[in-house]
Amino acid sequence: MKQILMMSSSRKGNLAYMEHADDQLHAVLRARAGRVLFVPYAGGITFSYDDYEARVKPVFERLGYELESIHRHRDPRAAVERAQAIAVGGGNTFALLERMYDAGIVDLIRERVSAGVPYIGWSAGSNVVCPTIRTTNDMPIVEPPTFKALGLIPFQVNPHFIGGKPAGHNGESREERLAEYLAIHPGESVVGLPEGTALHVQGENATVLGEFDVLHFKQGGVIDRIATGSTFALASL
Amino acid sequence: MKQILMMSSSRKGNLAYMEHADDQLHAVLRARAGRVLFVPYAGGITFSYDDYEARVKPVFERLGYELESIHRHRDPRAAVERAQAIAVGGGNTFALLERMYDAGIVDLIRERVSAGVPYIGWSAGSNVVCPTIRTTNDMPIVEPPTFKALGLIPFQVNPHFIGGKPAGHNGESREERLAEYLAIHPGESVVGLPEGTALHVQGENATVLGEFDVLHFKQGGVIDRIATGSTFALASL
Repeated sequence: MKQILMMSSSRKGNLAYMEHADDQLHAVLRARAGRVLFVPYAGGITFSYDDYEARVKPVFERLGYELESIHRHRDPRAAVERAQAIAVGGGNTFALLERMYDAGIVDLIRERVSAGVPYIGWSAGSNVVCPTIRTTNDMPIVEPPTFKALGLIPFQVNPHFIGGKPAGHNGESREERLAEYLAIHPGESVVGLPEGTALHVQGENATVLGEFDVLHFKQGGVIDRIATGSTFALASL
Repeated sequence: MKQILMMSSSRKGNLAYMEHADDQLHAVLRARAGRVLFVPYAGGITFSYDDYEARVKPVFERLGYELESIHRHRDPRAAVERAQAIAVGGGNTFALLERMYDAGIVDLIRERVSAGVPYIGWSAGSNVVCPTIRTTNDMPIVEPPTFKALGLIPFQVNPHFIGGKPAGHNGESREERLAEYLAIHPGESVVGLPEGTALHVQGENATVLGEFDVLHFKQGGVIDRIATGSTFALASL
């Protein structure tokens, strides 16, 4: 059964790195073997993969899970094949997807997670769980071979969801961007994840985790709330 | 001689549509024939091309220029071939570039503008003047065949530039995004255009227009100001 945690972000408000996520991480990793393979490819741009691993490792160790970054393995595909759980960190979604394709691990991660290997993603790591990365907030600093991603769930999410825009600024608001996405892709819908929220996918259902409700952006400008704690069928969106 | 106006945005603060841009538009169109071909492809997603043309037309008419949208022409390539000036509006940069490729006008606009046909772009219409669209702020709602764009100038710009981020929000700031862009593309630099500013390219030089200075993001986290009113050689960045 699929076990996927899609977190909006690594931080909520002014909390320390992952401080809000203990329960969310346990929800997915609990009762599973203790070693997590970390994919740092969304980062490692203005800091090293080593630094990224050093930031994430203590979070998982504190909860009783070992963690090692995929960049320490000569063969990234073999590392995914052996992984007991996979964690994909935030950063730039375009860089993440490009490097996942470079490493040849996109199909492999899809297969393994479909077969029940737990997957934990935050921010960019949640974007790539979706059919495509077309609802990322990130700058397209590199060009991946395709926007197609893992497709482990049948709808798009928008991490770091925040409404409105800075006073006097005329860039598009997040709501406007998602309305454009939906207008150009009739029949689809998007789940906006405010910081501190997550979706916990178990098989064909998802449960909303965190302090806040998440937002379901539908065709025609309709926005529903999905209450925290509630569970819905993936196919129902 | 190339005559290009790259505006950050269609609005500055709470001013009405294009209200800040009269001088900037005259600077490029002055002494040229009076008909402007409008490319609305960045919009027309949550509103129609007709509506977009109707919003832009009075701005140009008030200044003494006729304007007609390319969507009224059966053959978009023929329309570009005959254009006396080209205006490319804002909206979604990915949609704009995809539709420009669909219409087969990317190479043609590059050729005509290189040959001296004035080009006016704002927001997404400024992004596509650059070598690629990799410094757009927009959501990748559609996937163009490539990120390569008109390449009429040798560096990237970032329209709607605004520093910082909302309090308590943990998405990347614009500065962080551009620092990542530069880290992954050594040797490049990016010009951030705050709203209300523009670059006026004349041949191989550009002049900063507007009330504010623009920002030159360089390797290693260095950010220089380029003063409004000053002129620099395109190749000097």
